[in-house]
Amino acid sequence: MRNIIIINGPNLNLLGKRQPEIYGHEDFDTFLIDLKTKFKNFNITYYQSNVEGEIIDKLHEVGFQIEGIVLNAAAYTHTSIGIGDAVASITSPVIEVHLSNTFSREEFRHKSFISKHAKGVIVGFGLDSYNLALESFRN
Amino acid sequence: MRNIIIINGPNLNLLGKRQPEIYGHEDFDTFLIDLKTKFKNFNITYYQSNVEGEIIDKLHEVGFQIEGIVLNAAAYTHTSIGIGDAVASITSPVIEVHLSNTFSREEFRHKSFISKHAKGVIVGFGLDSYNLALESFRN
Amino acid sequence: MRNIIIINGPNLNLLGKRQPEIYGHEDFDTFLIDLKTKFKNFNITYYQSNVEGEIIDKLHEVGFQIEGIVLNAAAYTHTSIGIGDAVASITSPVIEVHLSNTFSREEFRHKSFISKHAKGVIVGFGLDSYNLALESFRN
Amino acid sequence: MRNIIIINGPNLNLLGKRQPEIYGHEDFDTFLIDLKTKFKNFNITYYQSNVEGEIIDKLHEVGFQIEGIVLNAAAYTHTSIGIGDAVASITSPVIEVHLSNTFSREEFRHKSFISKHAKGVIVGFGLDSYNLALESFRN
Amino acid sequence: MRNIIIINGPNLNLLGKRQPEIYGHEDFDTFLIDLKTKFKNFNITYYQSNVEGEIIDKLHEVGFQIEGIVLNAAAYTHTSIGIGDAVASITSPVIEVHLSNTFSREEFRHKSFISKHAKGVIVGFGLDSYNLALESFRN
Amino acid sequence: MRNIIIINGPNLNLLGKRQPEIYGHEDFDTFLIDLKTKFKNFNITYYQSNVEGEIIDKLHEVGFQIEGIVLNAAAYTHTSIGIGDAVASITSPVIEVHLSNTFSREEFRHKSFISKHAKGVIVGFGLDSYNLALESFRN
Amino acid sequence: MRNIIIINGPNLNLLGKRQPEIYGHEDFDTFLIDLKTKFKNFNITYYQSNVEGEIIDKLHEVGFQIEGIVLNAAAYTHTSIGIGDAVASITSPVIEVHLSNTFSREEFRHKSFISKHAKGVIVGFGLDSYNLALESFRN
Amino acid sequence: MRNIIIINGPNLNLLGKRQPEIYGHEDFDTFLIDLKTKFKNFNITYYQSNVEGEIIDKLHEVGFQIEGIVLNAAAYTHTSIGIGDAVASITSPVIEVHLSNTFSREEFRHKSFISKHAKGVIVGFGLDSYNLALESFRN
Amino acid sequence: MRNIIIINGPNLNLLGKRQPEIYGHEDFDTFLIDLKTKFKNFNITYYQSNVEGEIIDKLHEVGFQIEGIVLNAAAYTHTSIGIGDAVASITSPVIEVHLSNTFSREEFRHKSFISKHAKGVIVGFGLDSYNLALESFRN
Amino acid sequence: MRNIIIINGPNLNLLGKRQPEIYGHEDFDTFLIDLKTKFKNFNITYYQSNVEGEIIDKLHEVGFQIEGIVLNAAAYTHTSIGIGDAVASITSPVIEVHLSNTFSREEFRHKSFISKHAKGVIVGFGLDSYNLALESFRN
Amino acid sequence: MRNIIIINGPNLNLLGKRQPEIYGHEDFDTFLIDLKTKFKNFNITYYQSNVEGEIIDKLHEVGFQIEGIVLNAAAYTHTSIGIGDAVASITSPVIEVHLSNTFSREEFRHKSFISKHAKGVIVGFGLDSYNLALESFRN
Amino acid sequence: MRNIIIINGPNLNLLGKRQPEIYGHEDFDTFLIDLKTKFKNFNITYYQSNVEGEIIDKLHEVGFQIEGIVLNAAAYTHTSIGIGDAVASITSPVIEVHLSNTFSREEFRHKSFISKHAKGVIVGFGLDSYNLALESFRN
Repeated sequence: MRNIIIINGPNLNLLGKRQPEIYGHEDFDTFLIDLKTKFKNFNITYYQSNVEGEIIDKLHEVGFQIEGIVLNAAAYTHTSIGIGDAVASITSPVIEVHLSNTFSREEFRHKSFISKHAKGVIVGFGLDSYNLALESFRN
Repeated sequence: MRNIIIINGPNLNLLGKRQPEIYGHEDFDTFLIDLKTKFKNFNITYYQSNVEGEIIDKLHEVGFQIEGIVLNAAAYTHTSIGIGDAVASITSPVIEVHLSNTFSREEFRHKSFISKHAKGVIVGFGLDSYNLALESFRN
Repeated sequence: MRNIIIINGPNLNLLGKRQPEIYGHEDFDTFLIDLKTKFKNFNITYYQSNVEGEIIDKLHEVGFQIEGIVLNAAAYTHTSIGIGDAVASITSPVIEVHLSNTFSREEFRHKSFISKHAKGVIVGFGLDSYNLALESFRN
Repeated sequence: MRNIIIINGPNLNLLGKRQPEIYGHEDFDTFLIDLKTKFKNFNITYYQSNVEGEIIDKLHEVGFQIEGIVLNAAAYTHTSIGIGDAVASITSPVIEVHLSNTFSREEFRHKSFISKHAKGVIVGFGLDSYNLALESFRN
Repeated sequence: MRNIIIINGPNLNLLGKRQPEIYGHEDFDTFLIDLKTKFKNFNITYYQSNVEGEIIDKLHEVGFQIEGIVLNAAAYTHTSIGIGDAVASITSPVIEVHLSNTFSREEFRHKSFISKHAKGVIVGFGLDSYNLALESFRN
Repeated sequence: MRNIIIINGPNLNLLGKRQPEIYGHEDFDTFLIDLKTKFKNFNITYYQSNVEGEIIDKLHEVGFQIEGIVLNAAAYTHTSIGIGDAVASITSPVIEVHLSNTFSREEFRHKSFISKHAKGVIVGFGLDSYNLALESFRN
Repeated sequence: MRNIIIINGPNLNLLGKRQPEIYGHEDFDTFLIDLKTKFKNFNITYYQSNVEGEIIDKLHEVGFQIEGIVLNAAAYTHTSIGIGDAVASITSPVIEVHLSNTFSREEFRHKSFISKHAKGVIVGFGLDSYNLALESFRN
Repeated sequence: MRNIIIINGPNLNLLGKRQPEIYGHEDFDTFLIDLKTKFKNFNITYYQSNVEGEIIDKLHEVGFQIEGIVLNAAAYTHTSIGIGDAVASITSPVIEVHLSNTFSREEFRHKSFISKHAKGVIVGFGLDSYNLALESFRN
Repeated sequence: MRNIIIINGPNLNLLGKRQPEIYGHEDFDTFLIDLKTKFKNFNITYYQSNVEGEIIDKLHEVGFQIEGIVLNAAAYTHTSIGIGDAVASITSPVIEVHLSNTFSREEFRHKSFISKHAKGVIVGFGLDSYNLALESFRN
Repeated sequence: MRNIIIINGPNLNLLGKRQPEIYGHEDFDTFLIDLKTKFKNFNITYYQSNVEGEIIDKLHEVGFQIEGIVLNAAAYTHTSIGIGDAVASITSPVIEVHLSNTFSREEFRHKSFISKHAKGVIVGFGLDSYNLALESFRN
Repeated sequence: MRNIIIINGPNLNLLGKRQPEIYGHEDFDTFLIDLKTKFKNFNITYYQSNVEGEIIDKLHEVGFQIEGIVLNAAAYTHTSIGIGDAVASITSPVIEVHLSNTFSREEFRHKSFISKHAKGVIVGFGLDSYNLALESFRN
Repeated sequence: MRNIIIINGPNLNLLGKRQPEIYGHEDFDTFLIDLKTKFKNFNITYYQSNVEGEIIDKLHEVGFQIEGIVLNAAAYTHTSIGIGDAVASITSPVIEVHLSNTFSREEFRHKSFISKHAKGVIVGFGLDSYNLALESFRN
């Protein structure tokens, strides 16, 4: 069993509730059940916080022994040097994911402080971005 | 009775104590009493935090049922994509306010990640900015 | 009775006629009647011009004795150093107002040469921006 | 008979007098006679002003009923948000023209606040730019 | 009979097939038949390529004897110094045309490496841009 | 059987030969055999060109009937508006992939003209980026 | 007798009245009397307008026969391509003057559209700038 | 006895654990013991948080009575207007320190929102930066 | 005998024909004969293409065994990341040459994507730049 | 007798010798004789150096007792913070002069580190700029 | 005895004389006596020059054998690539110091060409910056 | 015998001593002996200074009669408008050379104030750059 954590950043707790005509009616908890069913060989834990520093805390806590981190830092992706530094400091591999295609949105969402230190970046597949990130740990 | 919340961001808890020759000796709690007296038809609650993520939490908590939000995100106004996204995600109308005239201060205070998603913006009237924001909900 | 002047800049004379599906069918003259009714203690005069220099002329004419100026310089807001200098030169307090949320529009509308010298700035409340500006003179 | 107006901006009144070795000895009035002869089916009127606001006034006056506007805003092309807004507000189609090739001149002449709202743009054909603009209304 | 060539750049071969709700159902070949009918005094040839260097080759091949070139370099307009240099090197007059109003699209489409060396520029009239370009050679 | 094409841009033909200490000794043809073995339900074709216009040609040729395109435009990613336009014009879904983490390399590799029009973007997983892209078509 | 005109731009009509603690109590009319006394060989006329286009009109009117123009375009200095073009179009020599040291003020006052076409520029000597400009015509 | 607090920002809790080949094997707690031994006349307290708002909270708590603050805000140095505002609001002197030479690292680490309000800045001496900061309070 | 190839980019095939008053009447073939006479110890081959991708193809073809490449990529110098990548990928030494002094021309000609990977750069000596490049291979 | 010094910066020693068709055949020494004749009430000394630091030395030497400094720092004007600081540090009034109209030349000549600290700036009158500077000390 | 040199750049020779209300009445020579008294174990020499190249000369002269250099390059800090290169070339450790808080002054003083190559940077402690720099050599 | 001077700028006197693992153990004097042996027909003199103004002095001294100048202005290349102006003012041809490939180093080394006025530029061949420069004078 491979230990993997999914860490979600600000406003992602609203999934399913926020603008459902755009983001769909599925919340992340429901999606997580499907994901665990699909990736039976993985022991998947989940963490979400709207606080930048708590995401750093969590990366520190898990980042020296867990086998994989799927990180969607949402808005902090574009402004947090601190999360970028945390990803650079830990030893577990980090996959950066985004639900929406950040490159077709505002200019300020095109910059990421995390990408540089990530093992890989997956952008724009909706919830399927998480599937692909987990898939990348299979190999 | 209309439910309204005032949310204040970083360093605004120091009002009355911080550089009183500039900001005056009145603290926000005292001002709040006057405000409640003046706007008797409103049920006004108040929240202050220095933590960006806690402001996002509060916006999520109240933002789908409350009738109005007066938001002075202070320093986070200029850097927080996360608070901007939260304002965009919720359904309650948000009025952005500032005590000082941010446009006559440093260049980096001229940019707001919130304005774009706000119902309106009121800048530079001192504590009276809050009065005008509440006034706007009267109509 | 307090003397107040509302000064409107270029294209605002088209209100009610220009893209009514966006700006509504109410023209400024009709709105002015309502405003005068609402603010009975104020002696409100009105001036509109599409000529930058005429707005400067008017600010000079009234700006050393009138008790309040509500200025919507429209397009000139973003390019007129001359109107900004005029506001800085006169002694009457000036409130800058905008109908639309200029911050959610083109980049070039985010810059104002007037804000720095204004007593306060009110943006994005539609015609209600004028109500709030007058309200601010009540105090 | 189709009603068309040609509106010329600042310094274009000097045509024929200003640097004739570059701009030729023909003034605009003479050219206009030729143009009217050539386009007999058009009722062509002409307006020139060096005042930005007067150009806006004229656009408002004709812009809701005339069948075509040929606009050479000259220097105001590059700085006037107000004329750009006027073009966006009216309903008559506007063709932007320039005598010289603005793209081979100073950097600040490459930017136009009008192009975005124009039906089309014709640049660099000398006085022939006006011929082509009228031609475009023929179709 | 005047010899004229129309040179179209990348993706213009898709006209009529690509997003027909926007660009219409008419392909360029059909349009060309109409054009030839309309301009009987012109011997019009046509060339299209998606390869930057082949457009340069064609400009070299025809550019020292043909009486007019109508060039829509499409995407290469904004990035190809090489095509710009070719236009500057040849002796036949070049008219730059664009179907859409490039100035109302993305920032990177506002820059042209060709305009500076063109005899004139016609932008935003749809297929009518080609008509006007040919018209300009009539004079 | 689902039809998928992999399109590789400039210098990717050197894989296995170019700086093998960095990019490994495996060439793309060998990798392709593995890929076809792994994705038996897909009919995978392969195309590589160093010519920008030939990549556009290929996108036009396959892009209205094929079920999926995996595009690694390499250096053209960052400069080719033409390939970006081609991706926007066709109807088949396009996944943008990159071998290396372009975000940890030179600034000019951070910009992509393709991302905006892609269904998704996968960056930095080495040859595994292609696996993940194909995986995304499975769903 | 040499004919010279002094043309003053926006807000300069307020001299003596505007912030007298900074600009002094002397108005321009009083200063003009002194100037005429000092430069007896010059026939000095004076023009002031707050309207950009009227300054252009005046430059056209006098600029082909007068022997010298002293131009303080004030705020328009930094934004008016139109006045710059007018100065370039006329044949009389133009001296650009400024009362205050524009280089020690806001960044946007460092740029002048007039300097390039002026015979010389005199900045920061207060009203003495006009003396020096007239002095330069003596030689 | 002089009261001094050392406040460390994000990721500094990893010292000794994070990339020890670069940052050494000494953790901050061990270093602190040495520091206290060396500066016997100082009563040194220590605080570390990864949360921007908690650092602001701590600055508010101690900043009106403590005799000296040594602040290494790490990644927040470059993005936190809020911490900068807090330093400006309190009355205790603040020394900004950095372990590494931030000027020889990425461009985004060259900007500090704190320096402007600090009594002094000490950069690049490793843990010795803290020694020098304390030394500065001796005088 | 040392094997050397000269690769010329877009528009260089026009040498002798294009603006002869500037570039002279000598075409590159004639010059090449002189060059071969002068450098008898070198086996010099020559390649020219206007197609970016064909230049990349040629660099790949020769770049792992030839003893020297003299590359004048002309316009592609300033825009082609692809040619820059090709130069970085091959093992033969590349000398970048330019006929004209690119630094005294337009700003966009000051940037080179090739220089960084070249063994040396020779600019502005006209055809003599090729002589010097070959000279550099003598040592 | 008023003591005045003229300080000239780099390359001004070549006056009369350097490009005489542009700068004239008069050298500065000859001009100085005329100047002294014209301003008999002034005791004029002269200093020229091509060394930035020697100009600073001279400013220090004379700048606390001399009654006026006319400074043409030439090329150093645009790059020397050190000369700017020297001018700010001394107590004698400094007039900045330039022979040519620096604003009609390269962009990098539009910036001055001296203007901000000068009493006034005189640009573009050729050698007459020095006359006007001295004239300004007369008053 | 450890050999240390203090090198001061332009305008620092004016200390005590220049704006004493800001910089104090103490000159550097007096301060140096105190410094030598305080650091008895150090053999401190002192050098000051206003000439950039002489500072480079001095760095070369001492920089391969002296045990420590305290360098306040003043204005040259922000413009001198040459001094930065000299610091990079020598082997003695260099501490960069500044009297004033350069970060709270003009934007152009925020950039340093020296910091990158310095062992450490100490900014804003007034003359105490030198004390701290020497202190850093004690360890 | 042709008279040629080599002028070297700051830090080049350290050649052979400075970072010998990079720049080699050969100093410039030794190299010069070889150079003189190789170019027997040239009378080669040599000058080096770390002082910007002394380089200008030397250019003035030799620049109106010497037959060729090889100039490596090192760090001053990127900042000295004064040396650029000197090169423009003199009549002897100047070849700009650099030892290292300045284009593969920091951004600020990509800009040259000299190139524009040089006869040619040779970059990145190590000491061989001087050989090639002299070679260019042979022709």
